[in-house]
Amino acid sequence: MEKKGCPIPNATARRIPMYYRYLKTLEESGVERIKSKDFSKMIQIPSATIRRDFSHFGELGRSGYGYDVSFLIEVFSHILNTEVEKRIALVGVGNLGKALGRYNFKNNDHLNIVCAFDTDSEVVGEKIKDIVVEDMSCLEERIKKEGVTTAILTVPSKYSQTVADKVIAAGVTAILNFAPGRIRVPDNVKVQYIDLTTELQTLIYFDENFTSSKQINF
Amino acid sequence: MEKKGCPIPNATARRIPMYYRYLKTLEESGVERIKSKDFSKMIQIPSATIRRDFSHFGELGRSGYGYDVSFLIEVFSHILNTEVEKRIALVGVGNLGKALGRYNFKNNDHLNIVCAFDTDSEVVGEKIKDIVVEDMSCLEERIKKEGVTTAILTVPSKYSQTVADKVIAAGVTAILNFAPGRIRVPDNVKVQYIDLTTELQTLIYFDENFTSSKQINF
Repeated sequence: MEKKGCPIPNATARRIPMYYRYLKTLEESGVERIKSKDFSKMIQIPSATIRRDFSHFGELGRSGYGYDVSFLIEVFSHILNTEVEKRIALVGVGNLGKALGRYNFKNNDHLNIVCAFDTDSEVVGEKIKDIVVEDMSCLEERIKKEGVTTAILTVPSKYSQTVADKVIAAGVTAILNFAPGRIRVPDNVKVQYIDLTTELQTLIYFDENFTSSKQINF
Repeated sequence: MEKKGCPIPNATARRIPMYYRYLKTLEESGVERIKSKDFSKMIQIPSATIRRDFSHFGELGRSGYGYDVSFLIEVFSHILNTEVEKRIALVGVGNLGKALGRYNFKNNDHLNIVCAFDTDSEVVGEKIKDIVVEDMSCLEERIKKEGVTTAILTVPSKYSQTVADKVIAAGVTAILNFAPGRIRVPDNVKVQYIDLTTELQTLIYFDENFTSSKQINF
């Protein structure tokens, strides 16, 4: 679907999952087509940006008609490879880990947490949805067996590196890390950090110091 | 501390809370000074970026000596106004809300969740740390009384707008929203979105399609 010789810019690539998410919401609400102006309002991204992003994937809309929602979903679904189930391991089943394990990754049936691990004997054996939490000693074997390539880490910072090394050794190439400490990974492994403290502090800092730009991410 | 006539660029402003967070970690570990090269390695931001960012706040380091950790903390602490307690309301005390309520906003003693609300009678009256969850009907009065200006929303998407309107009416000007649906707010209100589904999907998409740029945010 990608135009030949035109690699997708990083910034565009980063917005695709969001576009996809909103389009699925529109589809669920019974919306069949949408103008870039209205889509822009909905997702609070300038319509010029949306049109430029979409142009990387060919002629997706027609002037005056707007975009066909189900066609766009098909295109982005193909780009995001949503036909293939993404099998995810959850490592660290404290409060946040439990919340994530029970979290409904809405509109994304292909994102599935298929195993969960902790060191705490109080937690091991507990059921999170239909997953039984296993001891960390089972991690490598289970991840290999389940064909898991993505891991969500919600372990304390001081254990991040050790746990990251373990999941990587078991075959994980994508890590969503809720601990702020940067981890060292081989070149083939991607890491995304979500640090709630920093997010909150950034928000408050912008609230106290900047009067413009309401939405501070994207 | 900001140099006159040189407003801090948005990208720099966005990194300050992260710099502050890492510096506090260094201080806790007993590190007194750090070279930009080592700091760069630790936080995985190019040292040229760090030096350029820091230059907005005057002469923070000396060539060959590096940066004095406690001095930097003082500077950034002043910029982030950490002397003043940030009073935060938590709205929506489901699994994720509970996890956030119990979350230890480490190194940031000034970030305090001081009240929590839900509509579910099973949850109202429950204690999260030392906060008793109140019914949504108490929200406006409590937020005003507590002088809260920041709210964390973990309510389902379909209620985001109503709840946002309520907290804004009560005086909130900064919202951290865990629901993906964009909300409409007055010009003086800042919104930061954390959408876990999109974060996870972006990570996996980059893992499957890009071989370079290990760290996909920042």
